[in-house]
Amino acid sequence: MKTKGSLIVLSGFAGVGKGTVLKSLFETHEGYAYSVSATTRDPRPGEVDGVHYFFVSRERFEQMIENDELLEHACYVGNYYGTPKAYVDRKLEEGFDVILEIEVQGALNIKKKVPEAILIYMLPPSAETLKQRLTGRGTETEEVILKRMKRACEEAVGVENYDYIIVNDNADECAQELNGLIRAQRLRAKSNISFIRKIQKDLKDLTK
Amino acid sequence: MKTKGSLIVLSGFAGVGKGTVLKSLFETHEGYAYSVSATTRDPRPGEVDGVHYFFVSRERFEQMIENDELLEHACYVGNYYGTPKAYVDRKLEEGFDVILEIEVQGALNIKKKVPEAILIYMLPPSAETLKQRLTGRGTETEEVILKRMKRACEEAVGVENYDYIIVNDNADECAQELNGLIRAQRLRAKSNISFIRKIQKDLKDLTK
Repeated sequence: MKTKGSLIVLSGFAGVGKGTVLKSLFETHEGYAYSVSATTRDPRPGEVDGVHYFFVSRERFEQMIENDELLEHACYVGNYYGTPKAYVDRKLEEGFDVILEIEVQGALNIKKKVPEAILIYMLPPSAETLKQRLTGRGTETEEVILKRMKRACEEAVGVENYDYIIVNDNADECAQELNGLIRAQRLRAKSNISFIRKIQKDLKDLTK
Repeated sequence: MKTKGSLIVLSGFAGVGKGTVLKSLFETHEGYAYSVSATTRDPRPGEVDGVHYFFVSRERFEQMIENDELLEHACYVGNYYGTPKAYVDRKLEEGFDVILEIEVQGALNIKKKVPEAILIYMLPPSAETLKQRLTGRGTETEEVILKRMKRACEEAVGVENYDYIIVNDNADECAQELNGLIRAQRLRAKSNISFIRKIQKDLKDLTK
């Protein structure tokens, strides 16, 4: 049974620990690919084209929008960011589970375009934990923390439209649970139509 | 995060090894309940009411149909068989994942009635393996084997309407995979609405 990978869209409040969980997931399991975004902003020192981002000109980006080459795109602080479809499709075909980290609105847009995409929302064990984690970093002012909590409050409205939620209490355990959840998607009947068709055909041949 | 269990509807060709896989699953994991069917047939020696079946009269069974007390029902060799909703609901509320073993048509009927039910079809690694397994038992005539293969052929048509397929190559491994798949269903956003609502409310309270 050989299957295409799944397109996994992961979201979560700032401070919930998505980065740490994904790091643990990638370190302990093979077969994952991280979706590389295209952007019109300039590379920062150390950033490599095709690894951290695909760096493209504004003209090229607008052409990509025009040609429907992007799964989703958005504009932040005057720069475009988007997910090139071709890269994601190639990785899926190669059998990788592709992880795309993106906020709620982008995620729901992708689901409209790619109904088989799996939307996963990472939540803290409680709202109080999130506040503690944001405070515990010790790098943010109270004002920034309140702003982030308010942002979380707004984002939370969309969570019930996701397919799955996952609770990050401990990053390594959460990574294991995330892995189990993602691997289970390979068992979807829709992802195995060619295997099902082969069994159907062979059964027919064997009863002739 | 406390969740209701999931209703798991498991189907598979005769000879695919559902019984062995479920035995291994139940022996190695807690939190599963097997749905107990109601029937109008007489108990066989050793069969216990409420354990193997709920043995009921024909009048009582027809009343259950009338009152919509059954998730599905069918008639075999002049006797009724059906799945009492109340028993399944109670086990789900208690947090058990309830497994219901049933053929394709019944499974698809349940999905219509209970859209959150998870339909899993157990397949052999190949049509050839199924034939070998049926032959290998050594208890069936060639005619019976051909009949079973033809029946598999008919059943196979509905497989693509299932949510998931699972391949039974090795019973213990298949049980582990099945367990992972079933446990992943607990992470469905739809199964965790009260947890999501609580986080939403608490975030709001913390940013007041």
